[in-house]
Amino acid sequence: MALLVQKYGGTSVGTIERIEAVAEKIIGYKEQGNDMVVVVSAMSGETNRLTDLARQINPKVRGRELDVLLTTGEQVTIALLAIALEKRGFHARSYTGGQVKILTDNAHNKARILSIDAGNIDKDLKKGRIVVVAGFQGVDEHGNITTLGRGGSDTTGVALAAALKADECQIFTDVDGVYTTDPRVVAEARRLDQITFEEMLEMASLGSKVLQIRAVEFAGKYDVPLRVLSSFEEGQGTLITSESNEEDTVEQAVISGIAFNRDEAQLTINGVPDTPGVAFQILGPISDANIEVDMILQNIGGDGTTDFTFTVHRNDFETALTKLQETSEKLGARVCSGNNKIVKLSIVGVGMRSHAGIASRMFEILAKEGINILMISTSEIKISVVVDEKYLELGVRALHDGFDLAEYDEEAAE
Amino acid sequence: MALLVQKYGGTSVGTIERIEAVAEKIIGYKEQGNDMVVVVSAMSGETNRLTDLARQINPKVRGRELDVLLTTGEQVTIALLAIALEKRGFHARSYTGGQVKILTDNAHNKARILSIDAGNIDKDLKKGRIVVVAGFQGVDEHGNITTLGRGGSDTTGVALAAALKADECQIFTDVDGVYTTDPRVVAEARRLDQITFEEMLEMASLGSKVLQIRAVEFAGKYDVPLRVLSSFEEGQGTLITSESNEEDTVEQAVISGIAFNRDEAQLTINGVPDTPGVAFQILGPISDANIEVDMILQNIGGDGTTDFTFTVHRNDFETALTKLQETSEKLGARVCSGNNKIVKLSIVGVGMRSHAGIASRMFEILAKEGINILMISTSEIKISVVVDEKYLELGVRALHDGFDLAEYDEEAAE
Repeated sequence: MALLVQKYGGTSVGTIERIEAVAEKIIGYKEQGNDMVVVVSAMSGETNRLTDLARQINPKVRGRELDVLLTTGEQVTIALLAIALEKRGFHARSYTGGQVKILTDNAHNKARILSIDAGNIDKDLKKGRIVVVAGFQGVDEHGNITTLGRGGSDTTGVALAAALKADECQIFTDVDGVYTTDPRVVAEARRLDQITFEEMLEMASLGSKVLQIRAVEFAGKYDVPLRVLSSFEEGQGTLITSESNEEDTVEQAVISGIAFNRDEAQLTINGVPDTPGVAFQILGPISDANIEVDMILQNIGGDGTTDFTFTVHRNDFETALTKLQETSEKLGARVCSGNNKIVKLSIVGVGMRSHAGIASRMFEILAKEGINILMISTSEIKISVVVDEKYLELGVRALHDGFDLAEYDEEAAE
Repeated sequence: MALLVQKYGGTSVGTIERIEAVAEKIIGYKEQGNDMVVVVSAMSGETNRLTDLARQINPKVRGRELDVLLTTGEQVTIALLAIALEKRGFHARSYTGGQVKILTDNAHNKARILSIDAGNIDKDLKKGRIVVVAGFQGVDEHGNITTLGRGGSDTTGVALAAALKADECQIFTDVDGVYTTDPRVVAEARRLDQITFEEMLEMASLGSKVLQIRAVEFAGKYDVPLRVLSSFEEGQGTLITSESNEEDTVEQAVISGIAFNRDEAQLTINGVPDTPGVAFQILGPISDANIEVDMILQNIGGDGTTDFTFTVHRNDFETALTKLQETSEKLGARVCSGNNKIVKLSIVGVGMRSHAGIASRMFEILAKEGINILMISTSEIKISVVVDEKYLELGVRALHDGFDLAEYDEEAAE
């Protein structure tokens, strides 16, 4: 018997039929003897419908009243799911974020959870009730309704699991787990049984969008075991846990997965006089223009000057280049250039910490395919390279193959 | 400068355009220097849409979770109206029933208001904000969401006006006031400038459905001046106040209006041995069958027996007749009969208290038209007669004419 917090996204509860199917699924877990707390999103399309209504009045709508509006989406789902559970003879009780209560700061439309009072839920669980909680929402200290920003239902699930000290937080979605890479690019991509929070963060932020990054961070911080499963298919999904579980899985591959990002653009400024504060002088104007910078490289140019390269989202390329040209003139740099036809490929894995030579093996694999590397950046559990966009599929497949990620696929294992 | 509580029904806020029109209307009142508190219903059709969703899961749905579901309807409207007000440069703040807070008992789907904490609203008004409150909803002492039952937004408006000691509670609807009778029956029907709570209750319960009866009772109990106006046309509407204002309007007609009810059925039991408790023996089984009884008449039969007649809703006729036949046999009554082709016509007016001969004038008017009276019932401010249903229109027109109700119509007054 365990305490499970499950989260079902908008697609999983998108119709009455699906809500009834989710009710059946929850009852299955309940009948196995588990205590069940379920977090749901708005029915798919509902948040967009509500946003459209508000935008008909004010295209730039935001703030307190938008939260009052959007939170009705999840409130509809919790009621319908509770009704579906009760019709099947199970005691259920729904809660809005404010009723739980989930206390947040007052940053409307993108609030952060401060604390959760799980007293009501504890009482309900003791009475054998199934608890259904609206995702994505909370209240501030004055009782104003807040939202955590889109996709925030994952965070609600993890935060509740942490507050209730749940045995597992299970995120049901339309994919059946985390894969070694995008199966649309590599048909042999394999579902991972287990992955660490850190690896998941690198995979997610690099483009394998399965879970909200904030939810993973939260789960890592409070060490909540997190499992990604399919709403529509049976299966164990992927368990995301803290690093300590690594020892249990000695057979784990050195590399967990290959991530990639198509939306990159690279900017370079060469021959900058190398004085203290030059990095800030270059990146300050970029940041002031609300452009997020991803990779940053600085190299010594050899003649007392410095070469400086960074990447931004492709949508920000033109603006960033204009800013950089201004800076270039101001600093008396030699030349300033950009390239928005690039992609980033990364290998991710906690295993590389204890294995030497992973980087050189990566470069070898790419070199064999004739793929020229434009930039390299490394962290403890990740190595990223920037290459010409035409090499994306070739590069990902080569790395997936080269690091034997398809090796343990189902057919081979049976 | 006054404090006004305004209530806009579902039709008045049925589309984004209408919500924007309501915002303009509110701003008009605000700019005249009034403090504004606005109660809104769900957009028309929304409550039915939500109910349909729930009924797809459970056709007999009711209770706590239905309230969680339905209250989202008003929550959407308060947010959209607040957004529309803010877009026009006015500070607005929306509140759900729970946020106000409107404390109710825990009778889900038909809760009654116990108290209102108007502290938040007072603060907002002092800051110059327009306050928008969700009608129809509250919370019980444990924070569970409750609803007041359909149409309960009128009650929310009146209760808020009472709690805030508002100068007037204005109910905006799709009619421009209370009429002397139904204009579909009598084209010359006249809008009343003023009417007492008691008269309004008699008019409403007798079929002129403009306001929720509970809202009128509430307004009368707390002496909240209540005005019914059109959302779509300009005009003063009808002011409903306590009787004390009668003195101001010496010119007021003796009769305020003619009400009627098509849905009546009459049941009679003749020759019942006249013993104590006979009325209870007859009506007990009817009441046990959850049938509401309207008019009740008991007459001495002349031979030591009693004749007993009562009316019920036409839908309950068959059941009531079966019950009555059982009672008839038990009591040894002579005969038991029924008629479901009848209607009730009533004249209503506080003026009749101080005017003799109103009843005989009513009977004279009906007699002149050859209308046979089947039952008569009187109260202090109302005389009702039951007649054959074929006489409904003829009877109403004759009474409207006979009591000069069309006399002060706009054209004649100018």
